[in-house]
Amino acid sequence: MAVGPGTLPEFFPVAGVRLGIASAGIKKPGRKDVVVFELAPGSRVAGLFTTNQFCAAPVTLSRRHLAEKAPRYLLINTGNANAGTGERGMNDALACCEALAQQAGVSASEVLPFSTGVIGEPLPVQKIVSALPDALASTADNRWAEAASGIMTTDTRPKGESAKFDLGGYTVTISGISKGAGMIRPNMATMLGFIATDARIASDALQTLASELGEQSFNRITIDGDTSTNDACMLIASGQYDGPEITLDSPHLPALRDALKKVYLDLAHAIVRDGEGATKFVTIHVSGAAAQQEALDVAYTVAHSPLVKTALFASDPNWGRILAAVGRAGIADLDVNALEIHLGDVCLVRNGGRAEDYSEERGQAVMDQEEITIAIDLNRGDISETVWTCDFSHDYVTINADYRS
Amino acid sequence: MAVGPGTLPEFFPVAGVRLGIASAGIKKPGRKDVVVFELAPGSRVAGLFTTNQFCAAPVTLSRRHLAEKAPRYLLINTGNANAGTGERGMNDALACCEALAQQAGVSASEVLPFSTGVIGEPLPVQKIVSALPDALASTADNRWAEAASGIMTTDTRPKGESAKFDLGGYTVTISGISKGAGMIRPNMATMLGFIATDARIASDALQTLASELGEQSFNRITIDGDTSTNDACMLIASGQYDGPEITLDSPHLPALRDALKKVYLDLAHAIVRDGEGATKFVTIHVSGAAAQQEALDVAYTVAHSPLVKTALFASDPNWGRILAAVGRAGIADLDVNALEIHLGDVCLVRNGGRAEDYSEERGQAVMDQEEITIAIDLNRGDISETVWTCDFSHDYVTINADYRS
Repeated sequence: MAVGPGTLPEFFPVAGVRLGIASAGIKKPGRKDVVVFELAPGSRVAGLFTTNQFCAAPVTLSRRHLAEKAPRYLLINTGNANAGTGERGMNDALACCEALAQQAGVSASEVLPFSTGVIGEPLPVQKIVSALPDALASTADNRWAEAASGIMTTDTRPKGESAKFDLGGYTVTISGISKGAGMIRPNMATMLGFIATDARIASDALQTLASELGEQSFNRITIDGDTSTNDACMLIASGQYDGPEITLDSPHLPALRDALKKVYLDLAHAIVRDGEGATKFVTIHVSGAAAQQEALDVAYTVAHSPLVKTALFASDPNWGRILAAVGRAGIADLDVNALEIHLGDVCLVRNGGRAEDYSEERGQAVMDQEEITIAIDLNRGDISETVWTCDFSHDYVTINADYRS
Repeated sequence: MAVGPGTLPEFFPVAGVRLGIASAGIKKPGRKDVVVFELAPGSRVAGLFTTNQFCAAPVTLSRRHLAEKAPRYLLINTGNANAGTGERGMNDALACCEALAQQAGVSASEVLPFSTGVIGEPLPVQKIVSALPDALASTADNRWAEAASGIMTTDTRPKGESAKFDLGGYTVTISGISKGAGMIRPNMATMLGFIATDARIASDALQTLASELGEQSFNRITIDGDTSTNDACMLIASGQYDGPEITLDSPHLPALRDALKKVYLDLAHAIVRDGEGATKFVTIHVSGAAAQQEALDVAYTVAHSPLVKTALFASDPNWGRILAAVGRAGIADLDVNALEIHLGDVCLVRNGGRAEDYSEERGQAVMDQEEITIAIDLNRGDISETVWTCDFSHDYVTINADYRS
């Protein structure tokens, strides 16, 4: 199941970024499971990584390499997360980087590794290394769609976005891919995103964009509240376009940020739409908060409530569950008589109880839709936050209670 | 579904506490849905209430009455939670108290109201008031089992516990009942507990016991992480036994606390065992924490993880999910190489990865059991905490996605 059509866009090649795909047979013979990004010299990369303390070996190594040198290669495998693998995992991730570096004529610290798949199994290094010649030989700038499929684990469909626009008289291209469908599907470590542009972006501006945009998109979605050990989202700027360098005080930064943000959001939303067992795409908008943290606390408490999520699955306008979730979100001095809760354009809660003009019919009409917005106005400040989530269905339990096979 | 036998015990009457039951036909004609506790003069009552900001009208009123006078009556109805009902809800709760007070010859502030059932519907005051003569006429000291059934909503079975023991040469009796099976089942507001003893307990000692024991039992269980708007747990001391008053510095306080704690825990565990769709009873024990809050954060993160809960349902020793949940529990400086995770007597995680001596067979043998302990030793301090939860099954989704009927 998944929400919406979810077809891949036409991908625009990004100058300076070439993609190679190969089959290492990590879980299934013949499956394309290794993807290589080859970046032109002068490219810059910034990223945002999981906050899980049990972060996977490739996450630790990518952070380290990123701090040492400008990357020339990203090496991604699916089928094995190389997480929960202790010291051996670190050695395995490094061995893959070294093999690619040697074949490509760069140093190992110019390679960033990413893994996704089963937690706790040793990485099949030899299989991955054997696939590297094919991956390198196949690099081309028009293989985005294949790469989107090549990083999937239990996703039901590939996820990508692409844009081309004018920035101060120069054409900028952005293409990106993502994967993820829940933290784990029998033991899968999940979310990855790779967004590349040919704009030339100063390092500090690039890191700021990567952090801000990742925060506002991938860090605002939740399927089941479980943070993966392998989450990573990388922003690549090849600098191959004809325009000037974009710095933090560049007048063109806002327009670039907006264009990138759209791609980030589309890729993040695509993960929710393909959430495990998802039948609804749900936007939770909290406004009128006194602080960002309380806005997020309310939004995530609603987004993670199993009772709200099962009501969404049932298309049941069960407003009491939303009210109860808001009430337990940890705001000590919340005035329940001041807040309002809307489902789509229908007011559910006002003056501490069900809105006088609410009717079950009107609530039902909104709930019957596939895309639903829950808007909560706390009426105690001017801070807003939005998170995106999906419902909680029988298929979620089926998918996650299936024995690992 | 429910875990374990769950038969009611033989209840020992508690001198000074009489129970009356009647039918108000709130949801179904003929269903016994009103329970009255009649307390002898001189009884003391202390309680612990929901922290949900959208707390129900009866919770607000019970708190207020408790602060004003020593209660003589507890009035409980099932079938309607009188929550999310705004100002009207307060008036309705008060009207019920006033009617009972008038018939019983006490003042309204000597009556504590409790409601459980559907959120957001107006309380059928007239029906409840009409049932009060029957409830009052039927009071007797041997109706605990009927009262346990009379406060049920969607519980699959009544819950009670009873004990009689020697305290410094005097016989003390404790009897208690509880209800709850999830926060809500189509819109139900849930957890109630009533524990009575004939011991004479000083007011400050009673409140300390009510807070401490509630915290260690009812506040350590979670079915789905949703805190109800109506949760309340009351401790009643009729003072009718022959012994002396128990004060905070009484040498007998520890023994009394232990006896009460066993009843509290049994009643709280009974709620988990009857959790919506539950097939497993799970103890999560976190030790070696540097602070109570981090122990609780880790325990609840594991207890609420949908991925851990679905793995428990599947009897799948999916240790990667437990590891990932611990890793995202918010301990910034957690040393993942120092901690250990056990499933029953089997070590799952050691040195940052799967324990060397772990085998799938041994993990499976533990997972196949109906009662499972997950023990997490953080190895960074000497604080421990325990919470109890159940698994997450297809039946949970079925129960909560059913349209309200």
